[in-house]
Amino acid sequence: MADQKKMVEAITSMDEDFAKWYTDIVKKADLADYSSVRGCMVIRPYGYAIWENIQHIMDGMFKDTGHENVYMPMFIPESLLQKEKDHVEGFAPEVAWVTHGGEEKLTERMCVRPTSETLFCEHYAHVINSYRDLPKLYNQWCSVVRWEKTTRPFLRTCEFLWQEGHTMHETAQEAIDETERMLNVYAQFCEQTLAIPVVKGQKTKKEQFAGAQATYTIEAMMHDGKALQSGTSHYFGDGFSKAFDITFQGRDNKPQYPHQTSWGTSTRLIGAIIMTHGDDNGLVLPPAIAPIQVIVVPIAQHKEGVLEKAGEITKQLKTFCRAKMDDSDNSAGWKFAEYEMKGVPLRLEIGPRDMEAGQCVLVRRDNREKIVVKLDELETKVPELLKAVHDGLYEKALKNRENRTWTAKNMEEAKKIAENNNGFIKSMWCGDLECELRMKEELGLSSRCMPMEQEHLGDTCVCCGKPASKSIIWGKAY
Amino acid sequence: MADQKKMVEAITSMDEDFAKWYTDIVKKADLADYSSVRGCMVIRPYGYAIWENIQHIMDGMFKDTGHENVYMPMFIPESLLQKEKDHVEGFAPEVAWVTHGGEEKLTERMCVRPTSETLFCEHYAHVINSYRDLPKLYNQWCSVVRWEKTTRPFLRTCEFLWQEGHTMHETAQEAIDETERMLNVYAQFCEQTLAIPVVKGQKTKKEQFAGAQATYTIEAMMHDGKALQSGTSHYFGDGFSKAFDITFQGRDNKPQYPHQTSWGTSTRLIGAIIMTHGDDNGLVLPPAIAPIQVIVVPIAQHKEGVLEKAGEITKQLKTFCRAKMDDSDNSAGWKFAEYEMKGVPLRLEIGPRDMEAGQCVLVRRDNREKIVVKLDELETKVPELLKAVHDGLYEKALKNRENRTWTAKNMEEAKKIAENNNGFIKSMWCGDLECELRMKEELGLSSRCMPMEQEHLGDTCVCCGKPASKSIIWGKAY
Ligand SMILES: [Zn+2]
Ligand SMILES: [Zn+2]
Repeated sequence: MADQKKMVEAITSMDEDFAKWYTDIVKKADLADYSSVRGCMVIRPYGYAIWENIQHIMDGMFKDTGHENVYMPMFIPESLLQKEKDHVEGFAPEVAWVTHGGEEKLTERMCVRPTSETLFCEHYAHVINSYRDLPKLYNQWCSVVRWEKTTRPFLRTCEFLWQEGHTMHETAQEAIDETERMLNVYAQFCEQTLAIPVVKGQKTKKEQFAGAQATYTIEAMMHDGKALQSGTSHYFGDGFSKAFDITFQGRDNKPQYPHQTSWGTSTRLIGAIIMTHGDDNGLVLPPAIAPIQVIVVPIAQHKEGVLEKAGEITKQLKTFCRAKMDDSDNSAGWKFAEYEMKGVPLRLEIGPRDMEAGQCVLVRRDNREKIVVKLDELETKVPELLKAVHDGLYEKALKNRENRTWTAKNMEEAKKIAENNNGFIKSMWCGDLECELRMKEELGLSSRCMPMEQEHLGDTCVCCGKPASKSIIWGKAY
Repeated sequence: MADQKKMVEAITSMDEDFAKWYTDIVKKADLADYSSVRGCMVIRPYGYAIWENIQHIMDGMFKDTGHENVYMPMFIPESLLQKEKDHVEGFAPEVAWVTHGGEEKLTERMCVRPTSETLFCEHYAHVINSYRDLPKLYNQWCSVVRWEKTTRPFLRTCEFLWQEGHTMHETAQEAIDETERMLNVYAQFCEQTLAIPVVKGQKTKKEQFAGAQATYTIEAMMHDGKALQSGTSHYFGDGFSKAFDITFQGRDNKPQYPHQTSWGTSTRLIGAIIMTHGDDNGLVLPPAIAPIQVIVVPIAQHKEGVLEKAGEITKQLKTFCRAKMDDSDNSAGWKFAEYEMKGVPLRLEIGPRDMEAGQCVLVRRDNREKIVVKLDELETKVPELLKAVHDGLYEKALKNRENRTWTAKNMEEAKKIAENNNGFIKSMWCGDLECELRMKEELGLSSRCMPMEQEHLGDTCVCCGKPASKSIIWGKAY
């Protein structure tokens, strides 16, 4: 147990310094490493395995909803980026510019894609001719670059991995439906795969994506009460179609402009997992994306038959879950701490006495509950317990959000809440930018979203007191 | 059949103009599209689905051999690239340079990775401390950029998708073993998955990777007799380790330098598939990576029950292979030509008369053979036929290589062969650069590799006539 204590002491407690606790976990759980490349990180095998699991499940959901993967160039010539006015204004200040190829200066500089609307539109202009070619439902998995000033692993890096869906539709309504469909896919993924409850809502005009007519978001609350925008879905109308001259022959035989969407999630989701579920012993992983779901730790492994039995059990576990045995020379205590740090959902302990009794001990990572399980019941009990861990994580996160959500009727109330707490403040809002700016200036709160499930919390704007019909959520955000 | 003829006429015949035939297929089979980004291509859904299948199978082979995936930054600061002298000399002339972030000029320019040895080494310096940390067996799937002057879709583009393995080992022998192991993985993948026979061999010093001590290659022969380097594996010794100051505490408790390898394959493999198996009717896909393995075409689909039956069969096929039904309004002839163009290995035709007889017609893409199959035998017959297509493709490609491989004892013989044919010329070689350069200058041939399976073809160099003990293959290459 001395070893275990040493391990545990090695990370900062979350109550003491949440930011430091976060970076400690990133490092000690072997998720990422720093590099000498400005604002970029190295995603290490354990962190990347989480991303692969996320990709695998999410990609299946995309394909089930009819989407196909493609790959677009990573560069955008400046003239292409400039085609849509609002879009270029939003992104040009934060892109990396390539100016030279080999020894030669380029005649036109190119940026590394910060997002690929322009590239998809250029291609769509080539392949969309008739209403029969619609909808086009494309997605790509790639990395993008945004020149951020301050960075933190997974949460905000100059380069990050993501997926970006880009679709084209015959009618505005079909595009709007797609925007909502994908927002629902994201919400479902966060809740059912990552055990992270989210609020679905629409962004204010101020927070909208550059070039979009409407931006939808899923907002998650981290353990410290701050919000994390975890996925967005945009409706563009036909703005890009016009800018890129994409037309199709409609059912009426006349040329028409298609309606567009895009939607994205990124490695930021790994930051969300850390800050939603982690604790002072380290990472806690939702079972669906855990690279190791069950770690098998032999107890008194030098005793006859223990390693063989542990190996046998591991082999059996592998037929229905992701299991690993640690038969290294490290002490059992060290192993307990190590795999708690790495957030493995279940630990299976098997020693001589367990063997005699034909049983083993399973320990849940989320609440440390110990459950004695008969060896011949593993195939039913392990999946049950993995589900229990998932549910436990979800409930705990939901409770945290509920405990940290308040309602404010006016500035005084909002101020009082914001001064003493971190969390979501729900209120009514008149819709004016001025009130949104005032909330930021006076209370340090940004608008998170206008929830899809609107609430009637009163009749007047929290800020100006004028009549208001929209409910909105305010918070501090990562 | 009029429709079919029209489709088929639309591509250039391979004998008439092989280069044009190639780009016709890329376009008409919907594999890729051009973009306004210099030398970069758009990989369309059908082309990308092939790449996903390649990735899936190859990644499984990497994991089976103990490798883990990671992700490194896409940028390399100039000072980092310069750390290894030979490496920077090889790559600096062909990289894209980022000089500005947003509005700001960078204090140090960065290139977009052309390959990531330097980034892996920087990270390895952080995480390798003891012999217990070795081997490190990492791989990454990403895109890289090389500023090529002339480009062709899949074969040579400024940006391409690839995987790059980077490993570190305790001893030189272990690293050399890894280099060979991965070359064998590549060869096995090409032969068993892509039905492409390859020659395994070592590159000459002239053709070695920048910074490597030895480069191994798999060389495939395309239909026109030209060679395509389809995968490479490099042994670096401890050169980078020294340049990057990577040391580990050895079993003798003394600091030592680890030994390094890297190995890569790319979307170029899709080019290899096109040029090895394609014909004048279009693409021909090896079944293992075909996005659609069986296309179901209902015959006289307006007749009662045909569509229902075809749908039923498709559903059944989908339980054991990748199948699709085309129930569009297009004529059966159009569909035949369309899926031949797309290289679908098997076509299943089902019409009223087939239904009555409880059978269907299967047509092989590779040799157009028609096989009548009882509907209740599909589950055994379809996999058999897919395997037969694979074997047929492999045999045909092997025969082409055999027919286009010659042996030359001296320059006169070599010249005569090279003047009249495209293919591999085997000979003995003394090992001198001068002879290698003369082969290029006088015959237009580059050295492809010194095969792992060495042959005794004589005792003297084909070029200078001096004693020679190495057999080598010469050819023209893509
Ligand atoms: Zn107001
Ligand atoms: Zn010679």
